[in-house]
Amino acid sequence: MSEATPLQVEDDELALLTDLYQLTMLEAYWKESMRERATFSLFFRKMPSTRRFMLACGQQHAAATISRLRFTPAVLRRLAATGRFHPEFLAWLGEWRFSGDIWTLPEGTPVFPNEPLLEVDAPIAEAQLIESLLMNLVQLETVLASKAVRIVMAARGRPVVDFGLRRMHGVDAAVRGIRAYRTAGLSGTSNVLGGLRHDLQLSGTMAHSYILAHDSETNAFRAFARHFPGTTLLVDTHDTLEGVRQVIELLQEEPDLRIEAIRLDSGDLGELARRSRTLLDAAGQTHVKIIASSGLDEYEIATLLDADAPIDAFGVGTAMGVSADAPVLDLSYKLVEYAGVPRVKHSTGKVNLPGRKQLFRRRDQQGNVTGDIIARREEVIPDAEPLLVPLVRHGRLDEAHMGDAGRARERVAAILPRLPERLRRLEPHDDAAYPVILSPALESLAAFTRQSME
Amino acid sequence: MSEATPLQVEDDELALLTDLYQLTMLEAYWKESMRERATFSLFFRKMPSTRRFMLACGQQHAAATISRLRFTPAVLRRLAATGRFHPEFLAWLGEWRFSGDIWTLPEGTPVFPNEPLLEVDAPIAEAQLIESLLMNLVQLETVLASKAVRIVMAARGRPVVDFGLRRMHGVDAAVRGIRAYRTAGLSGTSNVLGGLRHDLQLSGTMAHSYILAHDSETNAFRAFARHFPGTTLLVDTHDTLEGVRQVIELLQEEPDLRIEAIRLDSGDLGELARRSRTLLDAAGQTHVKIIASSGLDEYEIATLLDADAPIDAFGVGTAMGVSADAPVLDLSYKLVEYAGVPRVKHSTGKVNLPGRKQLFRRRDQQGNVTGDIIARREEVIPDAEPLLVPLVRHGRLDEAHMGDAGRARERVAAILPRLPERLRRLEPHDDAAYPVILSPALESLAAFTRQSME
Repeated sequence: MSEATPLQVEDDELALLTDLYQLTMLEAYWKESMRERATFSLFFRKMPSTRRFMLACGQQHAAATISRLRFTPAVLRRLAATGRFHPEFLAWLGEWRFSGDIWTLPEGTPVFPNEPLLEVDAPIAEAQLIESLLMNLVQLETVLASKAVRIVMAARGRPVVDFGLRRMHGVDAAVRGIRAYRTAGLSGTSNVLGGLRHDLQLSGTMAHSYILAHDSETNAFRAFARHFPGTTLLVDTHDTLEGVRQVIELLQEEPDLRIEAIRLDSGDLGELARRSRTLLDAAGQTHVKIIASSGLDEYEIATLLDADAPIDAFGVGTAMGVSADAPVLDLSYKLVEYAGVPRVKHSTGKVNLPGRKQLFRRRDQQGNVTGDIIARREEVIPDAEPLLVPLVRHGRLDEAHMGDAGRARERVAAILPRLPERLRRLEPHDDAAYPVILSPALESLAAFTRQSME
Repeated sequence: MSEATPLQVEDDELALLTDLYQLTMLEAYWKESMRERATFSLFFRKMPSTRRFMLACGQQHAAATISRLRFTPAVLRRLAATGRFHPEFLAWLGEWRFSGDIWTLPEGTPVFPNEPLLEVDAPIAEAQLIESLLMNLVQLETVLASKAVRIVMAARGRPVVDFGLRRMHGVDAAVRGIRAYRTAGLSGTSNVLGGLRHDLQLSGTMAHSYILAHDSETNAFRAFARHFPGTTLLVDTHDTLEGVRQVIELLQEEPDLRIEAIRLDSGDLGELARRSRTLLDAAGQTHVKIIASSGLDEYEIATLLDADAPIDAFGVGTAMGVSADAPVLDLSYKLVEYAGVPRVKHSTGKVNLPGRKQLFRRRDQQGNVTGDIIARREEVIPDAEPLLVPLVRHGRLDEAHMGDAGRARERVAAILPRLPERLRRLEPHDDAAYPVILSPALESLAAFTRQSME
């Protein structure tokens, strides 16, 4: 790298964010004049053991990006310089546009193993080329939203704020991650660019360095609270309870100061919260809230709340920022149909569902979700809702199906209480937790395809 | 998100990629006219249990970005629209430049707990503002390089190729990750943009979908091998050994076809490699290499090679792409000096080293690394090499200290055989694995600072 290497990837460069074999296969299809339509299905076979459902997220971003994807002359020159590609193929790439359809679950839909998260119907050269970028984009937001929603559930209605920018994997993860967090139901973020771009409330307190840079903790508190009425003060730089006492003294000296909350960032958070609450209440400062942070995840939060710790809001960073216990979702993007003929790779012990599909979700009369049916695309299943919608048609985004992240957030908030209670638990999942069956028509097609390929 | 929301972050927007509290603290420092110089130290207290050393990486990118950081008028308008900041403060931000120094370990340096990876000396408002971005940038490359170097070591000289684009956390991780991989010693990547930008050889084979889109596996092999002389054929779509036999038949039918390798991507890789090798050798195809992929990590690779599996190269994706067993490094960026006075946060059980520091590395007469000494910046330790270099001086990158990723790669290749053998093992680390001591002068300063802050 030289100093001049830009940090950021330009939008125009995204056509290059692909695996080399996509381009070589594309050149092969081009040489072989293989232009039939194919369908690829995006799904995962296994859920991480510490998830009970995944929250599909990122498909809109991915679809919008793919509908704009072009090989610009500058990009083609970089490919030509590799000496790997035929000039006529590169000229053809310059004309490449995604002209196909993308059927997808709406963002914020709970999704389970083997269910199609998204299906692409397009000439094979188009459906193949977008694989790597599509998977990269969808995986990130799905992984982060699926972790964040667990933390939101663990907090039982208390606000959860993201503090994870510094630990997320690079710039794109830190910015698009906020979109996933918003969908999952977080209340705020410390991440300025992420919050501004994806419309999640900004939130922030102070760092220990601010306290240390002043002569005394009290002077630091006073200066900050005067500058920022309604602020949160970080009380654990030296001794947490001593810090709380200084906040109380400050409020007694200057009753007009508005201090909204104190933040505990180390030690036994439950015990410190209880003792801080007692001190604050005894001083009549019942309105001063307590925010806890420091290595929190869904389990820690649940443990604190099970013990009735008087914590009003949680700041969560590291564990959520990389979905530390399950940083990867093993997404597959598989050819399931070519030239009108259903196809699958035969793998011992693996489910591979051929053909174009639709996913149906059943609810009982109270509106509670009871199970899913994976079916062929054209099927109609009575009393069940088809979930895959055509977000892209003939290469164009269908505005009717593009909701904003706010809509996805509402969708999540509405569905969570309707999921079976066992899906909302934090413990490792059991495979029987949620029924997903195949429609008889898809069962027959799968059996027929297996036989015909043997 | 609306359809128009761009995917990518513009270089100009990076000034906003910070935590809100950095900006509020900055406004407080500005109001309080606190303009003294501060030193912040970047280090980690604990290594992930599955690492024996970390490979420092990403500091050059971070430093280059910080030396260019500006608040453009467009960015200032977005901050003004939040209603949180004083207009005069925003005007001052418009003039903000990083004018300080950044001392850093060269990229590709093995680094251990509590050692300064990097130190920033600057007016406090500058040193504070860059915290979040700096940590985000350095963490990503350090985490990925530290995982990748283990995989390189496990492969014992055989090439390792990255296949992980689809599972990495977003666009920036996928592109800058390749830089970290190059430093760690990978041989190639399937990631076109990453490889082109960071000068790592492109590598790619074919996907199962290519086989499935053809009438037969043999026809697919023939077409691909004719298009791309010297290619690698993926033999496990239906039955691996049957696939190998078809490759052999094809080579017998068309002896002029150049097939460089076969790739095994499922099943018992050791056993399949042995049986494939036997088939190929019996047919006189001794020059056809065997590449293995499919869920590999350093442990799997070591197990395969311990059992003498005849595998010539490895493709590694998921486990490396997110450093799955240790996706986070718990980096700290702590104020250690302000206005010439060493300071530290007092934390029970945590090491916090005050003041400006230098890191010295000792070698024995054979050139083998024997241990480190953390010292005060101005110290000279005989027979030990000072590792921190001033990469940025007065806000400007010092070209003499900016190496390219190629130099970092050479540095890693040269140091690995010089590290104590116990650091190159794959097992979880023991704390006694590597001696890191404090110089007497730093010991005294730490004791004095602790006392004076109590």
